Amino acid sequence: MGKLVVVGTLAFDAIESPFGQTDKILGGAATYIGLAASNFDNDIALVSVVGEDFPQEDLDMLASKGMNLDGVEIVAGGKTFFWSGKYHNDLNSRDTLVTELNVLADFKPVVPQEYRDAEFLMLGNLAPAVQLSVIDQMETKPKMIVLDTMNFWMDHTLEELHQVIAKVDVITINDEEARQLSGEYSLVKAAQKIHQMGPEYVVIKKGEHGALLFHNGNAFFAPALPLEEVFDPTGAGDSFAGGFIGYLAQTKNISFENLKNAVVHGSNMGSFCVEKFGTLRIENVGKEEIARRLDQFKSLTQFDIDIK
Amino acid sequence: MGKLVVVGTLAFDAIESPFGQTDKILGGAATYIGLAASNFDNDIALVSVVGEDFPQEDLDMLASKGMNLDGVEIVAGGKTFFWSGKYHNDLNSRDTLVTELNVLADFKPVVPQEYRDAEFLMLGNLAPAVQLSVIDQMETKPKMIVLDTMNFWMDHTLEELHQVIAKVDVITINDEEARQLSGEYSLVKAAQKIHQMGPEYVVIKKGEHGALLFHNGNAFFAPALPLEEVFDPTGAGDSFAGGFIGYLAQTKNISFENLKNAVVHGSNMGSFCVEKFGTLRIENVGKEEIARRLDQFKSLTQFDIDIK
Repeated sequence: MGKLVVVGTLAFDAIESPFGQTDKILGGAATYIGLAASNFDNDIALVSVVGEDFPQEDLDMLASKGMNLDGVEIVAGGKTFFWSGKYHNDLNSRDTLVTELNVLADFKPVVPQEYRDAEFLMLGNLAPAVQLSVIDQMETKPKMIVLDTMNFWMDHTLEELHQVIAKVDVITINDEEARQLSGEYSLVKAAQKIHQMGPEYVVIKKGEHGALLFHNGNAFFAPALPLEEVFDPTGAGDSFAGGFIGYLAQTKNISFENLKNAVVHGSNMGSFCVEKFGTLRIENVGKEEIARRLDQFKSLTQFDIDIK
Repeated sequence: MGKLVVVGTLAFDAIESPFGQTDKILGGAATYIGLAASNFDNDIALVSVVGEDFPQEDLDMLASKGMNLDGVEIVAGGKTFFWSGKYHNDLNSRDTLVTELNVLADFKPVVPQEYRDAEFLMLGNLAPAVQLSVIDQMETKPKMIVLDTMNFWMDHTLEELHQVIAKVDVITINDEEARQLSGEYSLVKAAQKIHQMGPEYVVIKKGEHGALLFHNGNAFFAPALPLEEVFDPTGAGDSFAGGFIGYLAQTKNISFENLKNAVVHGSNMGSFCVEKFGTLRIENVGKEEIARRLDQFKSLTQFDIDIK
């Protein structure tokens, strides 16, 4: 069993896609990361903040998955972070309609004392200063810190972002963000430059086009599973991150070979996430279907060429 | 050694990309397919047409790779097919600047008598009526017919295209074309519909995002190799097709498992093609670097997860 701290948002999302729309439903990076990671054998603490309007049943659901919520602050009289977005017809791009930071604006994360020795730390997408304060609270250096971030922080708080990047082992960003951060169009060259900023591992998420892992001049690629139906991409990247870190925390093996497996587990979790709106699918995925889908990933990617 | 007939264009291309531009250089589907396929142990016949302006040295180069050119008609006083295109900054899209059909307008392909029993037939992108006439010339039914086509024929000669599709074993198209042909957005569903039109195998080419092989409810995916430099995507799809059919013709094994290998060999050939302008790289690739790069494909994609 691995000890894992997940920092990120708990949120309300309102989503429009070509396949329908939702009212305010449970969302947030920590939600998806935690749900995906809870499919592995881990002791997980969520560190986040919500308002008084956040339903107790959502907290109960997260707790029922074995997550420790001592690090989730409930702000009296406060309102929970709210995001609303609309997906384009191809589901590959979206417009943000509303962002209400609410209690997230003053979020001062506190890692529960008994988790300050966690070996694995997942920094969900948040202001770099907030991510930094979490790293600083860890009393023993984690075996592995994974950072998720996005272009917004590159545009607005690049210096602080670089401070975080310098302290992490893995960064996960999408292809456009890798290009923006590095100034290189080729993802191979982008990864080389990002390595030099600190992270030993660079994971580039390409949505329906899969994910690339770079390490030390080597690359590994996991496709997204081709699906009959994709309803809602929201949370797919966070589910990927949750599967990735959840598997690593469980196995406690941070070799390149095992990170390859972690990328596959991440893609697997992402493939479930997109099949229903919001957290519906990733909340209810079972161990057997996880194993069955891993088998599909094997037959999707494994081949047997004899190279003379 | 496999016996392989390749039908397609021999052409002049003029290419503009963010990395430079070329005058009229050797191009055409049959050129790239033949060059890629000639890296395997095959007896290849090209069936095509050129004008009097086509350089003897280009014909000599193709012959030097072991290709039989008896089926290449040289039209006295005619001009060779000419295509000119300009790539956008991301190299993923391009505008056609000029298309001069020239001798291609009246192309009546003739398969040399001694190749009418070939076991493998590759129909490069051409008018469906021309592709049909080649199928009809085969005196024994080939073990495998592979069809490459494009949206232009879906827009203008859909009925004839359907006649060809009904007679082939494999169709290779890109993702947008698969959606157009099937009316389905999901590639999984698109492949199901295209299977019903005839082909047992559907290969969906996604350029820098790799290639998918569908068969009977099963899927296989090969990524494009992440490269430091991509200069010119022209011919990448045809090089893919050449590696694919070249490997199959050599091994004469058309099982799904071997088609997976063929997709990897195709991706491998495509990865060389894009590294230099025109045919420069694919003309000069060596057996050792082909094997080395196959090894890279293995480490890029192979993992070892124990599934309980």
